[in-house]
Amino acid sequence: MKSILLTSCAALFALSFVPSTASADEGMWPFNKPPAKQLKSRYGFDIPDGWLEHVQKSCVRISSGGSGSIVSPNGLVMTNHHVGRDMLHKMSTADHDFVKNGFYAKTGAEEWKCPDIKMNVLWSIEDVTDRVKGAVTTGMSLAQENDARKKVTNEITAESEKATGLESQVVTLYQGGKYNLYRFKRYTDVRLVMAPEAGIAFFGGDPDNFEYPRFDLDMCFFRIYEDGKPIHAEHYLHWARNGCADGDLVFVPGHPGRTERLNTVDHLEFMRDEEYPLSMRSLWRREVQLATFMGRSTENRRVAEDDFFGVQNSRKARTGIFAGLQDPAFMARKKSDEQKLRAAVDANPEWKKQWADGWDTIKQAKEAQKEFWVRYYTFGGGGMALGGQLFAKAKDLVRMTDEKAKPAQDRLPEYSSDTALKNIELALFSPAPIYPALEIEALSSRLQLMGELLGCDDPTVVKVLGGKAPHERAEELVRGTKLLDVAERKRLAEGGKSAIDASQDPLISLARLLDPEVRALRKRYEEEVGSREQQGYAKVAAASFAVNGEDQYPDATFTLRLSYGTVKGYTQDAVDIPPFTNFAGLYKHAEERENKDPFEIPPRWKEAREKLNPNTPFNFVSTCDIIGGNSGSPVVNKAGEVVGLIFDGNIQSLVGDIGYDEKLNRAVSVDSRAMIEAMRKVYDAGALADEITGADKGGSSTSNGR
Amino acid sequence: MKSILLTSCAALFALSFVPSTASADEGMWPFNKPPAKQLKSRYGFDIPDGWLEHVQKSCVRISSGGSGSIVSPNGLVMTNHHVGRDMLHKMSTADHDFVKNGFYAKTGAEEWKCPDIKMNVLWSIEDVTDRVKGAVTTGMSLAQENDARKKVTNEITAESEKATGLESQVVTLYQGGKYNLYRFKRYTDVRLVMAPEAGIAFFGGDPDNFEYPRFDLDMCFFRIYEDGKPIHAEHYLHWARNGCADGDLVFVPGHPGRTERLNTVDHLEFMRDEEYPLSMRSLWRREVQLATFMGRSTENRRVAEDDFFGVQNSRKARTGIFAGLQDPAFMARKKSDEQKLRAAVDANPEWKKQWADGWDTIKQAKEAQKEFWVRYYTFGGGGMALGGQLFAKAKDLVRMTDEKAKPAQDRLPEYSSDTALKNIELALFSPAPIYPALEIEALSSRLQLMGELLGCDDPTVVKVLGGKAPHERAEELVRGTKLLDVAERKRLAEGGKSAIDASQDPLISLARLLDPEVRALRKRYEEEVGSREQQGYAKVAAASFAVNGEDQYPDATFTLRLSYGTVKGYTQDAVDIPPFTNFAGLYKHAEERENKDPFEIPPRWKEAREKLNPNTPFNFVSTCDIIGGNSGSPVVNKAGEVVGLIFDGNIQSLVGDIGYDEKLNRAVSVDSRAMIEAMRKVYDAGALADEITGADKGGSSTSNGR
Repeated sequence: MKSILLTSCAALFALSFVPSTASADEGMWPFNKPPAKQLKSRYGFDIPDGWLEHVQKSCVRISSGGSGSIVSPNGLVMTNHHVGRDMLHKMSTADHDFVKNGFYAKTGAEEWKCPDIKMNVLWSIEDVTDRVKGAVTTGMSLAQENDARKKVTNEITAESEKATGLESQVVTLYQGGKYNLYRFKRYTDVRLVMAPEAGIAFFGGDPDNFEYPRFDLDMCFFRIYEDGKPIHAEHYLHWARNGCADGDLVFVPGHPGRTERLNTVDHLEFMRDEEYPLSMRSLWRREVQLATFMGRSTENRRVAEDDFFGVQNSRKARTGIFAGLQDPAFMARKKSDEQKLRAAVDANPEWKKQWADGWDTIKQAKEAQKEFWVRYYTFGGGGMALGGQLFAKAKDLVRMTDEKAKPAQDRLPEYSSDTALKNIELALFSPAPIYPALEIEALSSRLQLMGELLGCDDPTVVKVLGGKAPHERAEELVRGTKLLDVAERKRLAEGGKSAIDASQDPLISLARLLDPEVRALRKRYEEEVGSREQQGYAKVAAASFAVNGEDQYPDATFTLRLSYGTVKGYTQDAVDIPPFTNFAGLYKHAEERENKDPFEIPPRWKEAREKLNPNTPFNFVSTCDIIGGNSGSPVVNKAGEVVGLIFDGNIQSLVGDIGYDEKLNRAVSVDSRAMIEAMRKVYDAGALADEITGADKGGSSTSNGR
Repeated sequence: MKSILLTSCAALFALSFVPSTASADEGMWPFNKPPAKQLKSRYGFDIPDGWLEHVQKSCVRISSGGSGSIVSPNGLVMTNHHVGRDMLHKMSTADHDFVKNGFYAKTGAEEWKCPDIKMNVLWSIEDVTDRVKGAVTTGMSLAQENDARKKVTNEITAESEKATGLESQVVTLYQGGKYNLYRFKRYTDVRLVMAPEAGIAFFGGDPDNFEYPRFDLDMCFFRIYEDGKPIHAEHYLHWARNGCADGDLVFVPGHPGRTERLNTVDHLEFMRDEEYPLSMRSLWRREVQLATFMGRSTENRRVAEDDFFGVQNSRKARTGIFAGLQDPAFMARKKSDEQKLRAAVDANPEWKKQWADGWDTIKQAKEAQKEFWVRYYTFGGGGMALGGQLFAKAKDLVRMTDEKAKPAQDRLPEYSSDTALKNIELALFSPAPIYPALEIEALSSRLQLMGELLGCDDPTVVKVLGGKAPHERAEELVRGTKLLDVAERKRLAEGGKSAIDASQDPLISLARLLDPEVRALRKRYEEEVGSREQQGYAKVAAASFAVNGEDQYPDATFTLRLSYGTVKGYTQDAVDIPPFTNFAGLYKHAEERENKDPFEIPPRWKEAREKLNPNTPFNFVSTCDIIGGNSGSPVVNKAGEVVGLIFDGNIQSLVGDIGYDEKLNRAVSVDSRAMIEAMRKVYDAGALADEITGADKGGSSTSNGR
């Protein structure tokens, strides 16, 4: 499972909403609203004092779109290979390919600095619902509401950052039901410590992705530095001595990216008939185009493979959700639930007056969206993402210099605070390599898409192409730009609006050309869709709280949540699938698939076969309720010790975006024992294993250290 | 290059039309209108008496969608591996895989009967323009015109078949400018003689498809039988002793499937903004879905690979055409040409009166098409092709029994004559294996597509799904049908309409359910689009003849045409590409791509390397104007002797659907010398080489035998 931020830009359009009262092992619970009651009643487990804070402060959110955890006092961070892969790719060249060959720093001096990653640790949560809701007053138009909400949110963020020095973010929960201010410690000096080769981290490739049984060592280790030295971590997770066993209660603290479980039926139908047909179409298209590009040479394959797997992963994930949306029986259940809730509201005159029109407001939002949705999508949504890194940089230069000229509270949120600007600059000034051939391919694809979706006589399309065919135009843009040079990007950023206005750079010109129309589309989206949805969902959420009780988790928002569940197999097509696989199964699986890519055992693993204990548990499944963005989350036991590393869900869990089924939904993890066994016997990385298990410090790996 | 019939069903919608006066080596000339003047003026070549008839009667049109030629007195037919591949696939099982391993029948007894192929030899052409046009009279509505044209066409066909016993077809040329009756000798007892392994026939796979330089032995040999014995061929092509050389004049007689070179600008814009965005979308989608299916197991790969390569091939071909359509400069040239022709018409009062409204009539046709185009496409066009073989059989059973109950002249043309019915039955009662897993995949994909294109609340979609999710419904249909059994298909066909009406078979029921709506859409298409186009293009064609002269070839119609040109390299990105490759280049190309699939040298070719003459010419290019459907066409010299075998065009030739550029357009062939060298040194097929070169009969391989 790939991290949430790597999904297509369509993800921007569909936000989350109020889930139903959790039953079974369901739910991704905020740390200020933990599932204490459920744990007590289902498992007889009382959350110990300090447990939540300790786990919370041991977890990291990773800017490339995944989760991780600190697993040593010296700031060692464990995450997935597929979360770290983006960095590995950026740090590789045709000569040293960390993705293909892996990496291990035997000493601190060898730890390799990442070009543009950020790791955030959640430090506090504060409820700011009243202040945000208070800024919107009766009689405001949709546009005024939107402005008021943006302004107050920008103000809260800026005040918080000034007061605490912590990165701050106002998070919309229950899609408008509540607003929480999240504050994070922010780290950007992050170094690569260890990564296995992609051949074992992603063994089975796309065919095995989201499948089970599974055999992947999908792990990667970084270290957080500050002032040139590893941090001394006040909180970090200890390593369980004996892993976990069938039936154990386990927890997953991590950052699920997005769920849409209680979207109204109208909203789901919009997804089914408008959003998914378009986003699937885009993903299928990109997958084939990238495969074609990669087929042309070995180097093309290397430079594009990371993007390619991202697209394949999103495609497979969305296929599962789409299948749920297109299932009439699933939709009938959603309709029936909604009708029950609406009937309960209608039966109470006070409720009816307050909330009954919530559903229709959402319906109006989706109807309004239909009118300009394809156009909005064509230009990459409000973020104006056309594909390719160079255009993204041109866009940020144009927008950032524009926005900086305004008072902070009136800016687009992504440029409104000091930290927001630092985040933009982290990517904008990144020294990571950019490959012109891939840039041409990406841009050419998007220019062609404009014609496909809007027709080639559309005035904007005509202007953008400037009389050239898409590929020819993309070539002209990429060959003509100077934005490949970090110094040039810095020069333009420092020169501000006047430097941008004066620039003849063809990509800057293109971003300037498109920006007014895309900003207008974004405004229209925020007012006609976003504001309506916040109005409508606030009512639906209130109704749901009133009817079903307050004990409901909000849909996922790529903020820290706690899931829980049991290590447990399942039955598929009448076959019992046990919870654990082992190393012996890896070699067997490869043989069944003729040891051919992507089922080829990497050389190191062929050599190490005799040394490895074949019975070592390799991957396991649990009922924990997770979703994209949870990639890299630790799996911990009741003592808060690491027993595994989340890296995927099974195919039946994909529909988890819109619903959870405990019978079949499973989270897939690397077993903690496999990681240690591989470090010691395959990678000659005993020092790393010692650091993780605490063996190097003579400490007991089973003490919980708190 | 894959055969034309294997392209997506969208190919049904865009028919061909009046090309411009040929310049350069342009043109696909009917055998009753050969390019005699051009050959004389450009090459000083007079077509000898009898040459055309001899070549014509040596050529075959293959029902799986390609071309071929008879190359021995005993009915040996040469074509491409990728044309024969469909048969190879149908004759294979998991245990004997002719596609993967190749095949060679050392004796006649070992020649392996094909399940459902047909080879036609063109016997005569007759102009029936007056009779067809005469059936349409002034004052008829579009519907009446359509009926009248269908009726007279059915009558001509039936009369001709009755009178001559030859398969007969009325071909629309210049998209309504002329009508010709083509008569064919029809052969259905065809046996496989020799095929190399796919690894060398399709070396380089999709990355090298439509590229040059190239290294493919894309050949396959069949033999035509009649009454249980090989035919004695009155006409067959002899083998040139010394191949061809740079600068030689060569000819390609074959069956180009479709071109659209003088579509009006409105028509091209429809293709660009409506047709291609939808057909590309479908192809990208299928490519990913089939790749996913194949990834699941080795057997899945085997059963789906033929479909998969067909989709990839169409996708790559259409990518080239689409790039041309989206090129503003290309469209500007089309606009300018059209404006000139229209200005010439407007300048002559008589012409203006007769033809000036032709272009607007076509515009109206395309505007009408826009209204129901997506829906028509969703159900697979007028042929109701939903994907999968089983549904196709159900459709033919339902329609055939319906149509047979009507007088022949009122039927849908594909069921109107005895031969037409025989053609339907050839496929319907084919013993070729059908794989349920692949059928479920194909049908499930199409059911999902209905939701994507029409929305899941569409009443037809709701009925078709019957409350089930697409995959679940496809599974129910395929598991529940008895149509896998040939005897059951025969039973239903023999039982006629009453048996079909009484059938409870779920696929028969589905075809019955959809048929009325799809027939109505087909009628609407024929009347509002087809009839209008025939009206409009008849005028545009007449105008073009009057202004530009009669010396114009009609657009391709998958009927026999003659192309001509020069063996000649070209320049791409400032690199000179010589016309010939050789065996040494094959091994070098494989090494550059790390000998990895699809660039892996097959074992037989590794073993034979030392025996082969490395300088043997392998593939070559010429300026001959060809297109999909020409696959398998012989390349002959002035003496009419085989020097090569067409199997592809270069990437620059793809736009050939809508325009020809002699500077870059190239046809790609297997060199005749490579075929003989490989037969003798790789395949131990000396007897076959002897038969082809005439060595076994002591004849001179250079005599032209006429």
